[in-house]
Amino acid sequence: MDQSVPEASREAASSEPCDVAATLYVCVTCLAGEDRETAPRAGRRLHDALADAQRRQDEPPRFRIVEAECLSNCNRGCSVALTGPGRWSYVYGDLNETSVDDLLAGASRYAATTDGLVPWRERPAIFRKGVIARIPPSI
Amino acid sequence: MDQSVPEASREAASSEPCDVAATLYVCVTCLAGEDRETAPRAGRRLHDALADAQRRQDEPPRFRIVEAECLSNCNRGCSVALTGPGRWSYVYGDLNETSVDDLLAGASRYAATTDGLVPWRERPAIFRKGVIARIPPSI
Repeated sequence: MDQSVPEASREAASSEPCDVAATLYVCVTCLAGEDRETAPRAGRRLHDALADAQRRQDEPPRFRIVEAECLSNCNRGCSVALTGPGRWSYVYGDLNETSVDDLLAGASRYAATTDGLVPWRERPAIFRKGVIARIPPSI
Repeated sequence: MDQSVPEASREAASSEPCDVAATLYVCVTCLAGEDRETAPRAGRRLHDALADAQRRQDEPPRFRIVEAECLSNCNRGCSVALTGPGRWSYVYGDLNETSVDDLLAGASRYAATTDGLVPWRERPAIFRKGVIARIPPSI
């Protein structure tokens, strides 16, 4: 739950700024059921694994990876959110470090759209099974 | 689930266009556990009750109410999403027609912020208990 989060948005850019239109937010505070004292937390481990894997890719990134503190999906963490101007935004849960390759592929597919709507059959299984909610583009 | 939704965003403005910065999307396709043949659907009834109640208010609306088709929160519908430029976006579930007054009050509080972050104690109970997920503002 996000009641302990300060009123100001505290997410910080995690990957280098680049000319990309989509953002993958990763909840770095998520415990995913682990003990509160676990360090680094499950969400942090997922974020760092994603950032490392993106840096190892040959092609330029199509989306930025950004830390977020609590996406209010604590019962089904780890959690990420995909968003971008003019696009539907999606929150996905039930993620862990084994999800990294599929997450990068799915986020790239999302970033390649103009509206955020990737055809159902082209979404990775972690997106089809782990969708928590979606929000229409701002109008 | 949203796999049956056409690729184009099909939401339509439901309340009159107005100079407001926040939007309350209401999933009008939600069945909320009712029979698929029920008409109007639970989400449609919630949307129409919200729009009617907003029209009856004396003060000018601080947010627009807009129809959406599936917010991918089918297990905990009815669902709404609150969003606006520069703001955290929120998805809420477990809603029905008895939620109308609290929804309007909570959305007005949200619209009065610049970042979407309403202090926890000032959020209506339906928001504290029914939060499904949230997404940071676009960067």
